[in-house]
Amino acid sequence: MDKLDLNFRHEIGGQNLIIAIAQDYESSEVLMVAYMNKEALIKTIDTGIAHYWSTSRKQLWPKGESSGHTQEVHEVLTDCDEDAVLLKVKQNGGACHEGYYSCFFRKIEMNTGKLKLVKEKVFEPEDIYGEK
Amino acid sequence: MDKLDLNFRHEIGGQNLIIAIAQDYESSEVLMVAYMNKEALIKTIDTGIAHYWSTSRKQLWPKGESSGHTQEVHEVLTDCDEDAVLLKVKQNGGACHEGYYSCFFRKIEMNTGKLKLVKEKVFEPEDIYGEK
Repeated sequence: MDKLDLNFRHEIGGQNLIIAIAQDYESSEVLMVAYMNKEALIKTIDTGIAHYWSTSRKQLWPKGESSGHTQEVHEVLTDCDEDAVLLKVKQNGGACHEGYYSCFFRKIEMNTGKLKLVKEKVFEPEDIYGEK
Repeated sequence: MDKLDLNFRHEIGGQNLIIAIAQDYESSEVLMVAYMNKEALIKTIDTGIAHYWSTSRKQLWPKGESSGHTQEVHEVLTDCDEDAVLLKVKQNGGACHEGYYSCFFRKIEMNTGKLKLVKEKVFEPEDIYGEK
């Protein structure tokens, strides 16, 4: 799989990255967006479990490593300029560390710009990650 | 709408950006991913038509300006760390300049890493953009 060469054009923190979107493979709900370096993409494809590059922690991020909320990858699509991938996944637990199935749990009200909660929690973060 | 303040933390080419994903508001098909600066986000919300920031052309990018393939925005969601938005849109024509409804028209074969076409064109680019 070393020959897998997309356009890792997003340079952040010294890493060359692609954007990675995770989408529920059945409902098509968009779950989250993150980045991958080449290592993360290869590990994702080789293992069938989503791996990202954490730009804040500056390290490989096997999604669900601490929470158990892994993403089983059914399909990987890439876009026209090959600088992004779309993962069709089976999400175990919830994708969001704040307890939601999708990280996109708030809408921006078009007339006021205020954020409004539009989803319900599927788990309590302190049950999974412990007290802060 | 000037008070609208997300986390424009992605610094590319001197711009502070958020990631913006466009998704069909009816079928939930993911159409494309791009970036927005604050001006693009405000214009999107104020006009109801998707505007992005083109990191290659380094300018505001009213989607569909030359092709007519605009995106009418029905809803804007943001994610947990507020550095990305998800647009639920009505896509006129096709999102992809290569003639596809979605830019994600190829899958990566998991065992070989090769790209395989999985969608059909909805328009011929030369009919819209002229001969190259």
